[in-house]
Amino acid sequence: IILTVAEHHSAIVPWQFVSQKTGAVLKYVGLTKEEVPDIEQLKGLLSSKTKIVVVHHVSNVLGSMLPIEEVVSCANKVGAKVLVDACQSVPHMPVDVQKLGADFLVASSHKMCGPTGVGFLHGKFEILSSMEPFLGGGEMIADVFEDKSTYAEPPSRFEAGTPAIGEAIGLGVAIDYLSHFGMQRIHEYEKVLGSYLYESLLSVPNVRIYGPAPSASDHRAPLCSFNVENVHPTDIAEILDLQHGIAIRSGHHCAQILHRTLGINASARASLHFYNTKEEVDAFIHGLKATIDFLTSHH
Amino acid sequence: IILTVAEHHSAIVPWQFVSQKTGAVLKYVGLTKEEVPDIEQLKGLLSSKTKIVVVHHVSNVLGSMLPIEEVVSCANKVGAKVLVDACQSVPHMPVDVQKLGADFLVASSHKMCGPTGVGFLHGKFEILSSMEPFLGGGEMIADVFEDKSTYAEPPSRFEAGTPAIGEAIGLGVAIDYLSHFGMQRIHEYEKVLGSYLYESLLSVPNVRIYGPAPSASDHRAPLCSFNVENVHPTDIAEILDLQHGIAIRSGHHCAQILHRTLGINASARASLHFYNTKEEVDAFIHGLKATIDFLTSHH
Repeated sequence: IILTVAEHHSAIVPWQFVSQKTGAVLKYVGLTKEEVPDIEQLKGLLSSKTKIVVVHHVSNVLGSMLPIEEVVSCANKVGAKVLVDACQSVPHMPVDVQKLGADFLVASSHKMCGPTGVGFLHGKFEILSSMEPFLGGGEMIADVFEDKSTYAEPPSRFEAGTPAIGEAIGLGVAIDYLSHFGMQRIHEYEKVLGSYLYESLLSVPNVRIYGPAPSASDHRAPLCSFNVENVHPTDIAEILDLQHGIAIRSGHHCAQILHRTLGINASARASLHFYNTKEEVDAFIHGLKATIDFLTSHH
Repeated sequence: IILTVAEHHSAIVPWQFVSQKTGAVLKYVGLTKEEVPDIEQLKGLLSSKTKIVVVHHVSNVLGSMLPIEEVVSCANKVGAKVLVDACQSVPHMPVDVQKLGADFLVASSHKMCGPTGVGFLHGKFEILSSMEPFLGGGEMIADVFEDKSTYAEPPSRFEAGTPAIGEAIGLGVAIDYLSHFGMQRIHEYEKVLGSYLYESLLSVPNVRIYGPAPSASDHRAPLCSFNVENVHPTDIAEILDLQHGIAIRSGHHCAQILHRTLGINASARASLHFYNTKEEVDAFIHGLKATIDFLTSHH
């Protein structure tokens, strides 16, 4: 099982379970000097022993985007399947599952303006048909006998129990909402806004931004994970919220392995979506500078 | 693993998975002549080899209620744990998990006026603490390392990923709503209403009701699963809906093993809750008689 150090816990822990059950070995792809997952290293790790490659599309910390088509092409050549965690790309750009060619692709509703607790798995039908269900219950069976059961065709096979109906409807409405603006339009707007955030943040003294510069990458998501010298990111988030009404996240962002790789325990992260504006970026930078002054003058 | 033939698929299929993984043997408790699960047979099956007993509290087809305290007492004596499927009791009566003493008890929100896709597992803390999680992701970890992770304390350990927040809030409101009426009051009202349904349905010619008579049982849930001679239950449900605006369910009610035990493929089921009235039972009986006339006169 090949993963990158930049995967979200939700794309790591389940594979640790698989490893513990089956004896499969987990191999992690590290970062380049530009702080993006090292695709050449990934290619070097691929072999006929590789069963699956688990990669993010866009990193929730680094903001970098992986060349999925290239990964799929190389992985499929050695007979390995590819699962793409697209939680950070699907809400922000057009994603064509046919073109990417991945065997599996997942995303979650609450990153795309929809309700929490729901998401989707896209998979090639012939692969899904060959797979056993892992959750049992109502709705997923064909016939239940005392010692065994037969299962419904995908997708029902993988949807045990009465589904979260309201959330599925909510997700559908969220997709319609985003589509109404147009994913390409959202993508282009966020590209400009994201670069503006990056450049503005770079101008703040003693700030270290993680991940590649927008100029050095094909695409950079409209987010910046960063630290300020001698200031704890949680203090920054707390004061930005309390004194300036600006919400950012601090912590490990469900990516402890990545933070350890970067030599830190935590970072602050400012994330934008299509509803944000340059004025809000300016307000964030203004608030951040005041927060740094506040926190360092109190030392 | 001991179960009864009257368990819902959602309490059977997961244990078939466990059986397939571990080699554990599934043993089913049959019905008495009164069509209730045979507790004496269950007691006879218990041995030091028994790991877990999986029983419903109230049957969704038979309407019968099992003596959980007795089951727990006998099972715990041989070192077996007990899981109670309380989906059909929790919405209709006071349920005291301490008094029942079961190691695990589950119920689902959508049977108690709450949203679908959410429910709860009650478990003894020392048992939950000793258990490994089976779903991995965000929110359930303590620390994630490359090869393994450590986990949060229960209940977080078993709640991987961003939770279904709206549904959990909805379930809480549903519990408050039911508690506002009072579970004992609901229970007493439904006992009278359920007996009225049973007696009324018994008076309809050629009707066969499954499960015990209210008089012959400590408690009978306010529901009747039944068939009408020479009429398919799906036709009954369809015509009752289309011509009389009355919604009942037809099919195997996620209990195929039970239906096979009863010698049938399907049944019709009229279910009541605290918001139903005697007048509605009368309307159902009136509609059912007209439906039977309609279906048999067209033959």
